[in-house]
Amino acid sequence: MAGPLRRRLPPLPLLLLAAGGLRAAERSGGSSSAMEELATEKEAEESHRQDSVSLLTFILLLTLTILTIWLFKHRRVRFLHETGLAMIYGLIVGVILRYGTPSTSGHDKPFSCSQEDRPFTTLLVNVSGKFFEYTLKGEISPGKIHNVEQNDMLRKVTFDPEVFFNILLPPIIFHAGYSLKKRHFFRNLGSILAYAFLGTAVSCFIIGNLMYGVVKLMKLVGQLSDKFYYTDCLLFGAIISATDPVTVLAIFNELHADVDLYALLFGESVLNDAVAIVLSSSIVAYQPTGENTHAFDAAAFFKSVGVFLGIFSGSFMMGAVTGVVTALVTKFTKLHCFPLLETALFFLMSWSTFLLAEACGFTGVVAVLFCGITQAHYTYNNLSVESRSRTKQLFEVLHFLAENFIFSYMGLALFTFQKHIFSPVFIIGAFVAIFLGRAAHIYPLSFLLNLGRRHKISWSFQHMMMFSGLRGAMAFALAIRDTATYSHQMMFSTTLLIVFFTVWIVGGGTTPMLSWLNIRVGDHVPSVEEMSESHWLYFRVGVDPDQDPPPTNDSFQVLQGDGQDSAQRNRTKQESAWLFRLWYSFDHNYLKPILTHSGPPLTTTLPSWCGLIARCLTSPQVYDNQEQLREEDSDFILNDGDLTVTYGDTTITANGSSGPHTATTNLDSRRTKSSSEEALERDLGAADHEVTSRGTRLVFPLEYNA
Amino acid sequence: MAGPLRRRLPPLPLLLLAAGGLRAAERSGGSSSAMEELATEKEAEESHRQDSVSLLTFILLLTLTILTIWLFKHRRVRFLHETGLAMIYGLIVGVILRYGTPSTSGHDKPFSCSQEDRPFTTLLVNVSGKFFEYTLKGEISPGKIHNVEQNDMLRKVTFDPEVFFNILLPPIIFHAGYSLKKRHFFRNLGSILAYAFLGTAVSCFIIGNLMYGVVKLMKLVGQLSDKFYYTDCLLFGAIISATDPVTVLAIFNELHADVDLYALLFGESVLNDAVAIVLSSSIVAYQPTGENTHAFDAAAFFKSVGVFLGIFSGSFMMGAVTGVVTALVTKFTKLHCFPLLETALFFLMSWSTFLLAEACGFTGVVAVLFCGITQAHYTYNNLSVESRSRTKQLFEVLHFLAENFIFSYMGLALFTFQKHIFSPVFIIGAFVAIFLGRAAHIYPLSFLLNLGRRHKISWSFQHMMMFSGLRGAMAFALAIRDTATYSHQMMFSTTLLIVFFTVWIVGGGTTPMLSWLNIRVGDHVPSVEEMSESHWLYFRVGVDPDQDPPPTNDSFQVLQGDGQDSAQRNRTKQESAWLFRLWYSFDHNYLKPILTHSGPPLTTTLPSWCGLIARCLTSPQVYDNQEQLREEDSDFILNDGDLTVTYGDTTITANGSSGPHTATTNLDSRRTKSSSEEALERDLGAADHEVTSRGTRLVFPLEYNA
Repeated sequence: MAGPLRRRLPPLPLLLLAAGGLRAAERSGGSSSAMEELATEKEAEESHRQDSVSLLTFILLLTLTILTIWLFKHRRVRFLHETGLAMIYGLIVGVILRYGTPSTSGHDKPFSCSQEDRPFTTLLVNVSGKFFEYTLKGEISPGKIHNVEQNDMLRKVTFDPEVFFNILLPPIIFHAGYSLKKRHFFRNLGSILAYAFLGTAVSCFIIGNLMYGVVKLMKLVGQLSDKFYYTDCLLFGAIISATDPVTVLAIFNELHADVDLYALLFGESVLNDAVAIVLSSSIVAYQPTGENTHAFDAAAFFKSVGVFLGIFSGSFMMGAVTGVVTALVTKFTKLHCFPLLETALFFLMSWSTFLLAEACGFTGVVAVLFCGITQAHYTYNNLSVESRSRTKQLFEVLHFLAENFIFSYMGLALFTFQKHIFSPVFIIGAFVAIFLGRAAHIYPLSFLLNLGRRHKISWSFQHMMMFSGLRGAMAFALAIRDTATYSHQMMFSTTLLIVFFTVWIVGGGTTPMLSWLNIRVGDHVPSVEEMSESHWLYFRVGVDPDQDPPPTNDSFQVLQGDGQDSAQRNRTKQESAWLFRLWYSFDHNYLKPILTHSGPPLTTTLPSWCGLIARCLTSPQVYDNQEQLREEDSDFILNDGDLTVTYGDTTITANGSSGPHTATTNLDSRRTKSSSEEALERDLGAADHEVTSRGTRLVFPLEYNA
Repeated sequence: MAGPLRRRLPPLPLLLLAAGGLRAAERSGGSSSAMEELATEKEAEESHRQDSVSLLTFILLLTLTILTIWLFKHRRVRFLHETGLAMIYGLIVGVILRYGTPSTSGHDKPFSCSQEDRPFTTLLVNVSGKFFEYTLKGEISPGKIHNVEQNDMLRKVTFDPEVFFNILLPPIIFHAGYSLKKRHFFRNLGSILAYAFLGTAVSCFIIGNLMYGVVKLMKLVGQLSDKFYYTDCLLFGAIISATDPVTVLAIFNELHADVDLYALLFGESVLNDAVAIVLSSSIVAYQPTGENTHAFDAAAFFKSVGVFLGIFSGSFMMGAVTGVVTALVTKFTKLHCFPLLETALFFLMSWSTFLLAEACGFTGVVAVLFCGITQAHYTYNNLSVESRSRTKQLFEVLHFLAENFIFSYMGLALFTFQKHIFSPVFIIGAFVAIFLGRAAHIYPLSFLLNLGRRHKISWSFQHMMMFSGLRGAMAFALAIRDTATYSHQMMFSTTLLIVFFTVWIVGGGTTPMLSWLNIRVGDHVPSVEEMSESHWLYFRVGVDPDQDPPPTNDSFQVLQGDGQDSAQRNRTKQESAWLFRLWYSFDHNYLKPILTHSGPPLTTTLPSWCGLIARCLTSPQVYDNQEQLREEDSDFILNDGDLTVTYGDTTITANGSSGPHTATTNLDSRRTKSSSEEALERDLGAADHEVTSRGTRLVFPLEYNA
């Protein structure tokens, strides 16, 4: 479904990943009149050179950005994030290109000839006896034929928008999934899903409707020179609802702000990217029957909802399946003796998710996200130590380069994109709408979630989430995908400005905002080396202990006894706990042992009549290296820096096991019980108390038969 | 100068690095009749899907290859190298695509309309009132218009040949330069340069002339159906003279064969790739004045030679300069605190070499090679430990993927390429010619080199070099670059067969050949882990001690006293030693200290009036960490596995210092002297004897003031 958004767009130098070789297509060969051929050769060589130069421009931009980032990090400057920096450099180069280069277009003279039928994709043209092949590039609205003749240099630095979707976004999104702080993510899963799905939908519809009002107003005032449908407004709502984690999270990471807030923000922004993509596809797919109705149509609406669900679950499945296949392959071969092969396989399998999803008509970017999560959850455990760092580092570099490229391209696009339509009314309206749209989902949703959460989302957290809703790469990529019509061009220009504004202001304001909201962060920022284990604990726990209730069972008790609907709430709590338990036990007892070298041997978890299969599927390491592997597993989790085990979501902490009276029982029962339900109970129950009693003990990786 | 070879070629799905998004250009947008638009949408989506599927095919191919490689490595199968394997899988898929898919081409109906002038690059076509933009794709010879309508699936799996040059070759070549075993390379530099430059030129001309004879014969017999010029034959000679190190060296590495043989083969094949590229560009640039003369023209010839020298030295300079700039940047910033930034910078700078060279009209691939060597020599020393492994691993993975992709594409191309011309006479002639061409440069050159070398290149080594001249990725990339004419198509098909044959036969025959030639290898193949330091020494020294003269000064004595021309040889030896010394001392005293954190402080090597500059340029680490850095440096060299310090090129081992009587002096003088000349003398002199006396001591990284 990536299809419906793709349209004709500005010229495509295509050479994102290597110098203009792809333009070879513009060449003519053969062995005819030498002079003419020489001229064509020369032209093509010139074009190739220009391609190289334009790509070189981007590389130098990135290099400059890297050096400045270093300077900023070196001097602990935090008012401007690297992505904001990349945009500024992009802006500067954009200005230079726009006003510093001559705007002649030389040889690109358009030629017209008439044809009867609908356009062919390939065209043969007879030029004084020789045949030349042309390929269809796209339609041009009759009023804008002169636009085809544009500045050559500006053409060169304009990429096909699909480059963003097919080359730059996948590594960014995969990295987000792969580096997900698993534990905190899963612990806050309920809230994250609520924010991502409900929140994005609410935000999309509120922004869409508000913008429709703005558009109506513009029509009244006479500021609108072309059509602007309701569906366009909704599409804008979907596009601009994709929040970007980059800037705020980088600062959170640096300041070691609260991990649960981090998990909420990160989880929300990662998942809502996926939701926003699929949502925008669904809105495009929303085509009311009949010609001129862009009004509401129930059938089309439900079709859109169906499309949304279909694409989302399909993409999810694709990602999960390739992740599982990779896990199986890495488990049952001894590939880990050859880290190079292993890394290459990992890379190829992850990439194939994207292609597979696209080939099946799903959304590659969404599939890649879930693939990343699956790979981190299962495959990662099977990799050799070297491959673990290799894969992490590989995707880290790819992510870094792609992200900074996108942001510097954004800066550039403000000046080099040829079809900007800046409408002050629309822009101001959009800023108000995104503010209201975010407010309208953060606060009500938080209120609802707090009804069910054991550790409530405090007001300061809510304000911080409200503030951190900045827009970035995904909104840009969605907006630039289709700039064929008047409305889309206006939406694109507005999105660009919103991204600029939010990245600079929000990025720069995060640190002051954190202190203003009294969200405790580590006071001085130690490097990993100088940070001892105890430091780590201190900074990671983060939240001011005398401001929030201490991490005992107080908050839980308060929650249980605070109102008339506690019984009902208790039920939903139990339900979600039950659902989570089911998944957890299934994952722990069957999936992990089947897919990885960790977990309990299948021979103990499967019924006895499955003995043979169980023995086949259980890797010998499970018996031999259980101790060692468990440690590795906990190392991984430790790396993610998760010592605030005290702030659990209700979905995870089981009802009975969190009182202090059960702690000892749990610690004792560890030696005797072995079912996963009990393991989970012990883990979660013990986690709370082990932190308070022992301080640094980690329990999540199960130790059911220690 | 990459230009002149580029021509029109089979359709380009372009989507090497991401699923077909780049084909978005074929789309038409706008808001017209919904039905028609929907049809176009659907078509485009279908095309996008096919693109994804075709790329997926390649990924699955690579995955399969990786798994089989693992199986082979696991079972120690050595008769087929991974590249050979990739080709076989490619062949199988090629057969399936060729004979298993329907050959209809649906919507790509060509359309003709007449035009007066020479072709425009952009074409506007009026289709029932709407305008569509087309771009020029290339000329089609009138007889082959029907060829435009070809099998859709075959089109999809055919890449633009420039993809090889601009995307796949650079990482391969950069990796070759970056992982060059510096020490052995530089020690055999004279011989390597001779083989690469003289050898390739000789081979090119011999093959070219022999093939011209074959072509004449074919004309006589009536097997030639189109023109085949002398310059085409020379071009074929240049293309097919590029040997590929991959297969043989992988086996050498695995078997731990002799390091000097390894250095010679590796150095030759890496450099001769560069020579072959530039040579083929020069031959294309060789255009005799006048229309129909493809005969010899002195002016054009010298122009070609000038072009060769210009491009080669220009590319060399580009590579060296960006390498030096990277070294300076990494030295004078504290970027090494942030390995991610450092790695990204390293990657970008190395890539910019390629673009810079292409933008200036030089050859990017050649520039990248020398950039890799410079980076390894200087920048590597400035990187943080993490970045060192990151950069190495990053380029290792890229190299691995690119290489296997090329080889599987080769297998595929045998069946999917649409314009094969297999001529038995030409093919047999080519096989004979490459055999003779290689023989005609290996044996005579080795004879000449042996006159000057202290450690002669033995007959068995010569036979091994003769045998190892297999052709691979570079020959293929050069051949596929231009397949527009009859002669070039025949050359391409022949090259493909030669690559197949040599990779399979030579790859499979390396192990038997090594034992047949009595080239001693490590008997069992230990992994790096299980290999102790002493093992390492044993395997790396490699050559049978009781077959070759023992590594004392015997061979040197024999050389000095063995004939009437010893005086003259001594002079050339001294001369080359003088040249090498000059470079070595310059590098050691000025370049290394300026560009890296190692080497002696500039304050000691520069004259005293440069005191200020010297102090600015010398990094404080040089004083503080000299000990530590020296160790790191030697670690690096140790990693390259170079303990056969006993087999020096005469260019390096200084005349007086290799007798046993100087050893003690050197070891003593180490404590007093400090000039680089003496340092070099000591190093090289002491190296010989330290090996014999202590066995594992490494001396090359200078220890002049220990």
